[in-house]
Amino acid sequence: MDATMPTAEELKDLTIPTLGKLELPSTLSLTSDHFVDDSHQIILYANQKQAEASVPAGAAQPRFELAGPRAKLFFDPKKINCGIVTCGGLCPGLNDVIRTITLSLHWQYGVKKVWGFRFGYQGLSSQRRGDPLELSAELVDGLQHKGGTLLGSSRGHQDVGDMVDTLQKYDVSILFVIGGDGTFAGGHALAREIKKRKLAISVIGVPKTIDNDIVCSEVTFGYSTAIEEGRKAIRSAHEEAISAYNGIGLVKLMGRDSGFIAASAALANSDTNFCLVPEVPFQLDGPNGFLTRMEKRLARKRHAVVVMAEGAGQELIKGPDKKDASGNVKNKDIGLFLRQAIEADFKKKNIPFTIRYIDPSYMIRSCPANARDSIFCLLLGQNAVHAGLAGKTDMFVGYWNHHFTHVPLSVAVGRRKKINPVGMLWQTLLLMTD
Amino acid sequence: MDATMPTAEELKDLTIPTLGKLELPSTLSLTSDHFVDDSHQIILYANQKQAEASVPAGAAQPRFELAGPRAKLFFDPKKINCGIVTCGGLCPGLNDVIRTITLSLHWQYGVKKVWGFRFGYQGLSSQRRGDPLELSAELVDGLQHKGGTLLGSSRGHQDVGDMVDTLQKYDVSILFVIGGDGTFAGGHALAREIKKRKLAISVIGVPKTIDNDIVCSEVTFGYSTAIEEGRKAIRSAHEEAISAYNGIGLVKLMGRDSGFIAASAALANSDTNFCLVPEVPFQLDGPNGFLTRMEKRLARKRHAVVVMAEGAGQELIKGPDKKDASGNVKNKDIGLFLRQAIEADFKKKNIPFTIRYIDPSYMIRSCPANARDSIFCLLLGQNAVHAGLAGKTDMFVGYWNHHFTHVPLSVAVGRRKKINPVGMLWQTLLLMTD
Amino acid sequence: MDATMPTAEELKDLTIPTLGKLELPSTLSLTSDHFVDDSHQIILYANQKQAEASVPAGAAQPRFELAGPRAKLFFDPKKINCGIVTCGGLCPGLNDVIRTITLSLHWQYGVKKVWGFRFGYQGLSSQRRGDPLELSAELVDGLQHKGGTLLGSSRGHQDVGDMVDTLQKYDVSILFVIGGDGTFAGGHALAREIKKRKLAISVIGVPKTIDNDIVCSEVTFGYSTAIEEGRKAIRSAHEEAISAYNGIGLVKLMGRDSGFIAASAALANSDTNFCLVPEVPFQLDGPNGFLTRMEKRLARKRHAVVVMAEGAGQELIKGPDKKDASGNVKNKDIGLFLRQAIEADFKKKNIPFTIRYIDPSYMIRSCPANARDSIFCLLLGQNAVHAGLAGKTDMFVGYWNHHFTHVPLSVAVGRRKKINPVGMLWQTLLLMTD
Amino acid sequence: MDATMPTAEELKDLTIPTLGKLELPSTLSLTSDHFVDDSHQIILYANQKQAEASVPAGAAQPRFELAGPRAKLFFDPKKINCGIVTCGGLCPGLNDVIRTITLSLHWQYGVKKVWGFRFGYQGLSSQRRGDPLELSAELVDGLQHKGGTLLGSSRGHQDVGDMVDTLQKYDVSILFVIGGDGTFAGGHALAREIKKRKLAISVIGVPKTIDNDIVCSEVTFGYSTAIEEGRKAIRSAHEEAISAYNGIGLVKLMGRDSGFIAASAALANSDTNFCLVPEVPFQLDGPNGFLTRMEKRLARKRHAVVVMAEGAGQELIKGPDKKDASGNVKNKDIGLFLRQAIEADFKKKNIPFTIRYIDPSYMIRSCPANARDSIFCLLLGQNAVHAGLAGKTDMFVGYWNHHFTHVPLSVAVGRRKKINPVGMLWQTLLLMTD
Repeated sequence: MDATMPTAEELKDLTIPTLGKLELPSTLSLTSDHFVDDSHQIILYANQKQAEASVPAGAAQPRFELAGPRAKLFFDPKKINCGIVTCGGLCPGLNDVIRTITLSLHWQYGVKKVWGFRFGYQGLSSQRRGDPLELSAELVDGLQHKGGTLLGSSRGHQDVGDMVDTLQKYDVSILFVIGGDGTFAGGHALAREIKKRKLAISVIGVPKTIDNDIVCSEVTFGYSTAIEEGRKAIRSAHEEAISAYNGIGLVKLMGRDSGFIAASAALANSDTNFCLVPEVPFQLDGPNGFLTRMEKRLARKRHAVVVMAEGAGQELIKGPDKKDASGNVKNKDIGLFLRQAIEADFKKKNIPFTIRYIDPSYMIRSCPANARDSIFCLLLGQNAVHAGLAGKTDMFVGYWNHHFTHVPLSVAVGRRKKINPVGMLWQTLLLMTD
Repeated sequence: MDATMPTAEELKDLTIPTLGKLELPSTLSLTSDHFVDDSHQIILYANQKQAEASVPAGAAQPRFELAGPRAKLFFDPKKINCGIVTCGGLCPGLNDVIRTITLSLHWQYGVKKVWGFRFGYQGLSSQRRGDPLELSAELVDGLQHKGGTLLGSSRGHQDVGDMVDTLQKYDVSILFVIGGDGTFAGGHALAREIKKRKLAISVIGVPKTIDNDIVCSEVTFGYSTAIEEGRKAIRSAHEEAISAYNGIGLVKLMGRDSGFIAASAALANSDTNFCLVPEVPFQLDGPNGFLTRMEKRLARKRHAVVVMAEGAGQELIKGPDKKDASGNVKNKDIGLFLRQAIEADFKKKNIPFTIRYIDPSYMIRSCPANARDSIFCLLLGQNAVHAGLAGKTDMFVGYWNHHFTHVPLSVAVGRRKKINPVGMLWQTLLLMTD
Repeated sequence: MDATMPTAEELKDLTIPTLGKLELPSTLSLTSDHFVDDSHQIILYANQKQAEASVPAGAAQPRFELAGPRAKLFFDPKKINCGIVTCGGLCPGLNDVIRTITLSLHWQYGVKKVWGFRFGYQGLSSQRRGDPLELSAELVDGLQHKGGTLLGSSRGHQDVGDMVDTLQKYDVSILFVIGGDGTFAGGHALAREIKKRKLAISVIGVPKTIDNDIVCSEVTFGYSTAIEEGRKAIRSAHEEAISAYNGIGLVKLMGRDSGFIAASAALANSDTNFCLVPEVPFQLDGPNGFLTRMEKRLARKRHAVVVMAEGAGQELIKGPDKKDASGNVKNKDIGLFLRQAIEADFKKKNIPFTIRYIDPSYMIRSCPANARDSIFCLLLGQNAVHAGLAGKTDMFVGYWNHHFTHVPLSVAVGRRKKINPVGMLWQTLLLMTD
Repeated sequence: MDATMPTAEELKDLTIPTLGKLELPSTLSLTSDHFVDDSHQIILYANQKQAEASVPAGAAQPRFELAGPRAKLFFDPKKINCGIVTCGGLCPGLNDVIRTITLSLHWQYGVKKVWGFRFGYQGLSSQRRGDPLELSAELVDGLQHKGGTLLGSSRGHQDVGDMVDTLQKYDVSILFVIGGDGTFAGGHALAREIKKRKLAISVIGVPKTIDNDIVCSEVTFGYSTAIEEGRKAIRSAHEEAISAYNGIGLVKLMGRDSGFIAASAALANSDTNFCLVPEVPFQLDGPNGFLTRMEKRLARKRHAVVVMAEGAGQELIKGPDKKDASGNVKNKDIGLFLRQAIEADFKKKNIPFTIRYIDPSYMIRSCPANARDSIFCLLLGQNAVHAGLAGKTDMFVGYWNHHFTHVPLSVAVGRRKKINPVGMLWQTLLLMTD
């Protein structure tokens, strides 16, 4: 209820493509009870009333395939190479995922060679800079305690045919793509090209979005760490604000299209007075506008803390759009905009104030994962490996109703999970702020 | 799947008692979409195959009432007093819950007086030490950044009639009891006595178990912080172990009956070699016993890390049982036991070794909540207040399939959630250790 | 040797003014051995060769009076009020100093009333906003765990006569001014005005400069915490840099005129490649300039980390000077300047790169003090109180050769301690970087 | 003044032995101003009054040789091998020292081979387990972020002749021994045997004592980190104590013979009520004994925090002495003793109470160094390398009056630095506690 839900209509086809039948026995030393088959499925709506409202009468609820180890495999682990690539901005837990996939492939399944392609999809193109890393247990030792990504990353698209050529050159049978919706669009294109060429190469997505905006996954890795670190920045802003007369602390957190980090960190901190997210537009001027509310707040308490998602208030900021290497429209700086707007307004009204603007984004993105994210990454990576060995493809590992699931890549392309303004997260925040 | 599930049979009656009809309008400034009514219900099994296997054909799945603000109330907030009591051992987040309940009652609903009874149920008895605290916004300011409990706590039972007398003396309409299954047994007894006396007093439980062992709640507050801090202790044990020849690091973590903290912290850390929990008995001696496996591990790697839940291996330790003030059997010290067993065995075999035993329990219990737990506490406290004002009673706020729920107190009494040995958590741990 | 030393000539008069004779017995419960008298003096040069080179033959070395409790007092603690004021930017430890001075005055000496003037020297002017706080043990309870300043702060000068009027109005006998060299200039002016009016009011300075740039004090509070936190920011920059092809991480740390924080945090982190401080000018262009060295470094290692003091490279940046409320010239943003310079240069040369600029200043300034700073603040505050009760005035508490000392305020006015480019700190840094 | 000072008589010979004349030019790229020669000397007493009281009239003060790079060397770096060994218990910063010595030898001086002997002096004996590690820049990369010691450690003595044989076998010209006074006794014995054999092998000590008890060094590495972490444990004890009626929190910290960590962490935390150290014996019983004072404290405040050095109160505890592998008498557990004494006494007197005992020692010893300790380790390691290359021997690098110094190993053997009970540290603590 915190997030907008995908509709039953949008999810009418949740079938996961497979490369072929499962005929080889698993190499995992598990009790037989632990193996999972495709008949285990997780329903979309745990809330029965939502189900009734959203699913046409007589129709079944959309269901996700349950992730987990399969008793039979498609690939013979001892005969294949695998590849890993990390794309987009840094996110706590990237190294945990790389480490888990590597160790699970080597130790649990017995795969001999795992290639780490360098610097994002660029590492799969013929224009790549240097050879892929050969990932070993030694190389990933202790990696779970480090931020960043061992493989390097980059933004931007590459030629799909060229990338499939590279996969063939390195004889890769399973490619793990770790990234967000843009990366998944690339992964989906790869899977289509692979199908066209009739190759047996599996493409498995691991959702990486610090913003927590991938649809059909209740949570993504790095998000919990981001809230933890974001809370610290808000606490700093609060200390700065209360240490000055009419002190104002501004904190900008990640969240291009979805304000989950800002809203959650603001809740966790509980000292926030204004929270601004892309999903809920606001007015700057007028009797109910931000500036008037700020003025009233200061008159009442002599300090204020504002937490902004980077994508908040974009409609208020003038100027030409710029795009990054991935083609995303770059956000204009809402923090600078608000600071200038407050300065101009308060100077005009002759209200004394002190303002501090904190942007901790790179310090948060580069953190090692906290314990919860480390566990999540470990289970995510394991389930990605299980799916790949079972010959699943063109899918990513999601998390829904407390279970790991398989979701078609296409579902996440061109859609984003957003805060539900009438859901519990946002409504609770409204009750706690100002 | 990580935990054993309650059976459909056990949960056949999930009806929440209410004190009367909802006739008063809510004082909450919410959009009408945000109010929830009892027709919203969360199903027990999101995994459809589990549902089919567990629910008799033709029968409906067990469902939990959805928590949340009600548009109509039973109590008139302006006319009532409320009370809060915290029981049992410390747990990160206790102060967050106290703060949220206090602020939600005062600010959102307009309740005038909130009593904080001191030192657990003792504070409700006529033998109490000192008067209850009157909780105000000033008193709970910044409380979310502090460990411990502002109200104090204690273990042990009190006379039920005597406690209801105190509630009447202080004219309490809603009592929030924050504690574990023992505390909930007390709360359930209170609710029965209240019913017998035909009083309109609501008893709302907020589950507090650092061990995460309350049934019908996927997770409880403090558990996430405990894993974070437990991971640090394991890392220390690992540094000690690798810095000595045949170095052994032992870490004992909380978990009287359920090994969730030990298993999760071991997963999060990823340097653990042996994880021992109450749910999975183990042998000390013999060719497949712990001592032989330890010997082999050292021969291979020259160091080892062992993580134990405090309730692990109790069947191996001789000596008379002791009980604490709440009547729980006190665990014998598995860490000392294992240290002595290893020392005796290795000296006999003339194997050199260095052993370090770390017990960080009190340092973990007294931590402030991490961001995730703070958010969870805040939502938990809010939902407890919503339930109380709506006249619900003899229930606690649970968390199931990503929704907050209402669960009868009786469900949690005398039962504990445990690790499912064939579930994903334990099976993944087996794959990652030794 | 890390810092430039004041000359013997500059320190020829280190006499501390006193308000009168010490005639009242101390109220401290100390062993007699612990009392200190003015005959205890700390020499300037512990390095005998420096002493020989700097002090004229036959002349005595400059010596600082030793700080500490005096057996006899000038003021009768039970009859006086005291005041505290905090000025300038935030610095970890401000609250520790406020707490220690308050508790030492109340508990150890028995002073009845301690006024906390709000928002810097503004709180001493007749234009002040609101009354001073009356500081009590309850109010400062737990304050050592919080960043910021309970009293609030501000920059800027106030009329000296007006401030002395306020001191008289509140009947203040000892004023503790916590701030940097600008604040000490104000304190020195207060002391002169007090002397002119023939009042018995003591002015005691407590040096607060996160930059560690007060002369005649080897170290100041907050500096150790700043290095700890600065190191974290550098680590983030390093993770960002190594995760991109030709990744460059820029970190700007505090240090308007003195680069101690930047240099020390760079040493502590040990992953820094370039450290830029105000004391050591550098070239941007040319064969030995920064841009060429950066290009070579990237060609060699594919990533680089740059740590800058905020006052570094000011001579390279064009544009008009601005001043802050205290009249200090505001630094132009060396981080933005370098980022633009690198971008322009590398685009011209067609070198691909990714650059991240981190400015953690407000997050560092608002931290609670680390343990070392907390201890330092406690001893500093205690010694400030001892000095005040003994009727010392127009002085601050310094730290020299491992002893707390008394130093005339005038010594610190208009001078700053700077990195010694031929000293151990800078030379070691040169050996460890690039 | 915090610590007892060595007497001038004890330090009458501070001459550092050298292996021969300095004839080779340094390979360091330093400005000539940065080189140091033996005429730079640091005086013992910066407090002039102490000097007058302690040094016989007409005699010169004892002086320590200043550490630092020499313009001329004894060894040709390109022709020698060096060795490093770490002994005794873990201490934050061990890896920093190993890393700095390795990098300084390789990069700054051009030494080709650096041997890391494994598991303490055992690694120098013919009974050693496995070969020494060859230390390279790759192997020590990132080591400054990790606790423990890469080389492993052990306690206990080895045959001196046997160890010198090993040094000859590996053709070691400079051996760096990192350890405490026991390790230095071993190093001193090595230096004597080397002299007897007329070998040109330098033995340079790097003081490692988390207890901060090496004489003639104001501070040692790891001590600052230990205080930081110790403070956290005390805070936990405080939260536990205030959350119970008559709650008592006991914390045992390191400090076999010297209570610096306990006293400093207690000061840093400021919530401590009783601090017990080996230097200041106390009574358990009687009207002024610990038990009575505890009873009074509880009656007044209903909670208490006790911080103990592990060596405190040994004279009160009955039972036979045990020794560790190094021959040190093992401390009896003062924490258990006090807990039992309080339990027995309070039960007898029928006083209700709750007691929690926290022993965080291994969690502290295994931490990575904080920023201050990292810097200290770096400068210490650099100066040890400078001394070794200059042919100094049988000495360790100390820190005195804010300068790094050379001190004969013999000075530290059989003596320990202790808290001065009439000094500022202890007297301030007395003022702040109870």
